[in-house]
Amino acid sequence: MIPTPYLLFLGDAPDQLAAKVAQGIKDWRPENAVGQLRLPGCGADVGLTDMTLEEAKEAGAQTLVIGVANRGGVISQAWKEVLVKALEMGYDLASGLHNLLRDENDLVAAAKVNGRTLHDVRIPSVAYPIANGVKRSGKRCLAVGTDCSVGKMYTGLAMDAEMRKRGMKSTFRPTGQTGILITGGGVPLDAVVADFMAGAVEYLTPDNDDDHWDHIEGQGSLYHVSYSGVTMALVHGGQPDALVLSHEPTRAHMRGLPDYQQPSLEDLRDTALAMARVANPACQVIGISVNTQHLSEDEATAYLKEVEDRMGLPTVDPFRHGAGRLVDALEGL
Amino acid sequence: MIPTPYLLFLGDAPDQLAAKVAQGIKDWRPENAVGQLRLPGCGADVGLTDMTLEEAKEAGAQTLVIGVANRGGVISQAWKEVLVKALEMGYDLASGLHNLLRDENDLVAAAKVNGRTLHDVRIPSVAYPIANGVKRSGKRCLAVGTDCSVGKMYTGLAMDAEMRKRGMKSTFRPTGQTGILITGGGVPLDAVVADFMAGAVEYLTPDNDDDHWDHIEGQGSLYHVSYSGVTMALVHGGQPDALVLSHEPTRAHMRGLPDYQQPSLEDLRDTALAMARVANPACQVIGISVNTQHLSEDEATAYLKEVEDRMGLPTVDPFRHGAGRLVDALEGL
Repeated sequence: MIPTPYLLFLGDAPDQLAAKVAQGIKDWRPENAVGQLRLPGCGADVGLTDMTLEEAKEAGAQTLVIGVANRGGVISQAWKEVLVKALEMGYDLASGLHNLLRDENDLVAAAKVNGRTLHDVRIPSVAYPIANGVKRSGKRCLAVGTDCSVGKMYTGLAMDAEMRKRGMKSTFRPTGQTGILITGGGVPLDAVVADFMAGAVEYLTPDNDDDHWDHIEGQGSLYHVSYSGVTMALVHGGQPDALVLSHEPTRAHMRGLPDYQQPSLEDLRDTALAMARVANPACQVIGISVNTQHLSEDEATAYLKEVEDRMGLPTVDPFRHGAGRLVDALEGL
Repeated sequence: MIPTPYLLFLGDAPDQLAAKVAQGIKDWRPENAVGQLRLPGCGADVGLTDMTLEEAKEAGAQTLVIGVANRGGVISQAWKEVLVKALEMGYDLASGLHNLLRDENDLVAAAKVNGRTLHDVRIPSVAYPIANGVKRSGKRCLAVGTDCSVGKMYTGLAMDAEMRKRGMKSTFRPTGQTGILITGGGVPLDAVVADFMAGAVEYLTPDNDDDHWDHIEGQGSLYHVSYSGVTMALVHGGQPDALVLSHEPTRAHMRGLPDYQQPSLEDLRDTALAMARVANPACQVIGISVNTQHLSEDEATAYLKEVEDRMGLPTVDPFRHGAGRLVDALEGL
């Protein structure tokens, strides 16, 4: 686990989109962030108090999180002065960039001298077991997509937030670097060695109270040929009791694969449910989450109604309309 | 690629089963082995000429292959004298053991001094790409199993051997350590990082002549919850034109998973074919390979006939009856 609370480093982010990791932390775990630190020329603002390293330390911050992604995912030389100073002041550093903190000699040296930890959340820090398939107590929900990047993480975070608002027992279980930075822990599943993928998901979602729900962050798609193996490990390692189908209706083709079309929601439902029932025969598809960001309000409403009528399942855009109806659908399970 | 031919090191193998890697090389690529080297007390014999390091060197051997697995997969101290001497004489070493050659300081030192290479075939030696899903030329066949360890590798090797006997263009494409040692190259798929699994399979099976067949070694099972993600990466990365269903009919439960039963051949057919057609809409299930080693000849014959009648597909045990009928079934594709 990464020590919280954080100070969010926005650096010299050119625009708001470059700060989406920091924005995710602010949106979903505001209690995890005491403020933001911006360098001159920063074009992003996640709406937290601007603080110096000293001010944030005073406010209790324990880790400086690199909440910005620049082109190529590199650690800019312009950031180094702040990062080294943070280590000297007793901060840990955390990053989800491709360019690892541990590959920067000056950061490694400063961390060592000051007894601090560099958290590269893209790299597994645990020797995960091989999955044993043994039935675990507690309930689990997994979003499976017609494609990559259709809103699976958002769906899981929104359902978790809604359940906790209702006083239900719920935990969001991150499987990618953004989710791990938001919550402070998880499994970077796409970086796990093949044999241990499903075991890593079992590790992430252990036995729990019978009325507790894990919302497991989905990855990839069973229909995305580059990443389908990762998705399969989630379906089997996660032993979900409930699946949510996630979809983005305006894609011309599968993400990054110009020759591939998205499957229908019917095909996704049938395939994912059959595979999920290998690990959990009681699994149900409980609803559909649609990312309607590229549709007008009227188009979105019409599309959601059409899908809901066709599929006979609660169909919502959790960003526009909240995840309440998806959580309602879990209550009977 | 591992330099061939090999001298096969059987060490102090307690019995024939412990030498199954060496036996596989002898059975499938006899041209890759000049002889065998046995230590006092060795209980295995793969039927090659016993040779000293000097005799095998004289006969052209370039690599000493550890063709034996002892309990725990460790590199025994009793072997070290021979292994170090081999490096000093100009041999490379190759091993598929869990205990890596590169983790043994004396072997690393001897390899360095003598300019030799240690081939740990469990560890990927290539930075594989992310799969791009682009259609490749040439044909590919993949065996998919109802369970792990049901004869998928054997089926692929037998079909490859039969095709080459007929003068057809064919290559066996290993995805596990035994297959890699047999042929001298391949991808240790279960050790590849999740994001790159399907890309590793694309890398392994590149564009080829239109009438060339790759026989891709299968791994795991879509129905084995520990390893299904690896299997999925083979189904999508391999873009198979042909699937062979592989089955072992006497299992009480899925291998290593007492609470899980094998799927029916019908379920395997439908699931694997639907998933394979995402990457290759022309894919066909062309036959069934049954491992009948635990059945009598009469039982085997009756079982194969029953499955063939039920499924309407050529059904053979390639070990007992050869892979000819499976290869016949490929010829029309």
